[in-house]
Amino acid sequence: MQHIVEALKDKYLYQDQLIDSTKSIPEFQIFFNDQVTNDFNTLFRSLPVDRSYYAFGVPGSFHGRLFPSRSIHFAHCSCAIHWLSKIPKEVLDKNSPAWNKGLIVYAGASNVEIVNAYVAQFERDMEMFFNARAEEIVPGGMMVLFAPFSGYVHLLGFFGSSLMDMVNEGKLDESLVDSFNLPLYFPSPQEMTKVVEKNGLFSIERMQLINIKSNLVDEADAKTLMMSLRSSIEGVIINHFGSKIAEEACARTILKSEEISEWMKVHYERPIILFVALKRK
Amino acid sequence: MQHIVEALKDKYLYQDQLIDSTKSIPEFQIFFNDQVTNDFNTLFRSLPVDRSYYAFGVPGSFHGRLFPSRSIHFAHCSCAIHWLSKIPKEVLDKNSPAWNKGLIVYAGASNVEIVNAYVAQFERDMEMFFNARAEEIVPGGMMVLFAPFSGYVHLLGFFGSSLMDMVNEGKLDESLVDSFNLPLYFPSPQEMTKVVEKNGLFSIERMQLINIKSNLVDEADAKTLMMSLRSSIEGVIINHFGSKIAEEACARTILKSEEISEWMKVHYERPIILFVALKRK
Repeated sequence: MQHIVEALKDKYLYQDQLIDSTKSIPEFQIFFNDQVTNDFNTLFRSLPVDRSYYAFGVPGSFHGRLFPSRSIHFAHCSCAIHWLSKIPKEVLDKNSPAWNKGLIVYAGASNVEIVNAYVAQFERDMEMFFNARAEEIVPGGMMVLFAPFSGYVHLLGFFGSSLMDMVNEGKLDESLVDSFNLPLYFPSPQEMTKVVEKNGLFSIERMQLINIKSNLVDEADAKTLMMSLRSSIEGVIINHFGSKIAEEACARTILKSEEISEWMKVHYERPIILFVALKRK
Repeated sequence: MQHIVEALKDKYLYQDQLIDSTKSIPEFQIFFNDQVTNDFNTLFRSLPVDRSYYAFGVPGSFHGRLFPSRSIHFAHCSCAIHWLSKIPKEVLDKNSPAWNKGLIVYAGASNVEIVNAYVAQFERDMEMFFNARAEEIVPGGMMVLFAPFSGYVHLLGFFGSSLMDMVNEGKLDESLVDSFNLPLYFPSPQEMTKVVEKNGLFSIERMQLINIKSNLVDEADAKTLMMSLRSSIEGVIINHFGSKIAEEACARTILKSEEISEWMKVHYERPIILFVALKRK
């Protein structure tokens, strides 16, 4: 957030020099939103003491309203938009053609109905998300989204395969796996374009896929990548399976790092982020 | 907060009927402020799901700025203004005439310099508090303060006497008591009037002492009252003495409930709140 505030200040300073040297830089309010169950205490304690903005925590789902009308000038959603508001109910329904037996995500599903159920939930959620933000963001205001790209879903499938290994070894009841799916959907640029245009309240100013190049996560380091993915999905796995099963399934998946690394090379999969810059019409 | 929002909505509805029936009720933003070390997670989880306002957490000291200029219409400080920003340094200084040897608050101090040091810190803190709020509250905006009244300080003295009992029994080093004071000052209406008028940025619309009548705390129930006081000061006692000493000192104080009850009857002390309604000039 500090980078965004500094960039906006620079913009104001530059404009001021051009237009009116007596105009002052505005004050900045930054609102940090997450689910009510997020650890806001740790967030607040990690904020820089000498920050140049007023900081607030906002508990609640971004699929609903969080702010008063026309009160936000710039919104940023960092790697969260791929979390669905709920698991599509069809994929847990034995009697549905979209029943996702033996898998925990849509990747690898033999039935297109399963992917369609996920896509439909993603489209409903994004419509709610855009409608809420459109009320809150001023006309001309910006919204920047970062979303992990579609390749991630295949990597998450390896966690599911570890659970199924435990089923095959008699350590876990298969019905527990069948009644669990990750509420995640990783949109492609085409799918993101579709939901933005269908909603119609924002214009796409820029959209691109960005390769993540960092010391932490690179294409050769499947282990670090899987540990990072584990940290984000561990909570929902524990909620469903309990901490003992979750711990073993995650540990088994990390042990598959070499296999995953090979899979990534064969499929040219690399950690990629979908970047989207939108403007409120 | 729900009561305040409902009262404001009623006021708007009543005004609208009189003036313009097409005007709509505004949206409400409620900002909950506390120190960074507060448990905001529990606060957020305890907010009503069907609340009729947008809720935000604001970490930071109210002795400094928390909000942008002229962004607040109504401020309420509930039983917090008596917390000083720090312990007055003189009361911990062996070489100062205000050294508060053997006591943990200004109550019972034989030396007026000790009370003066507390009063001076309170006045400095309130000046910072009023200056910050005056920047943040719109002209004509209201600020309502609830402060526990001065009698409380005598009750807190009983916690200090328990610590000194432990010193006399050889269980605690006296220097540990001498190096500890509670950063609390309980202003009288006269003292509150003085700091408001000295600051000059708010007008006093109303000020009164309110008897608390509740099932939880009444004049006959010193035990419940002391347990309530314990919950508010236990943190700072643990920080200084460690949890073992703090636990014993608090338990010993609760055991003195009958003695405290007698003391309260003799001194006509009852749980009283100082209510202050201020308006930004």
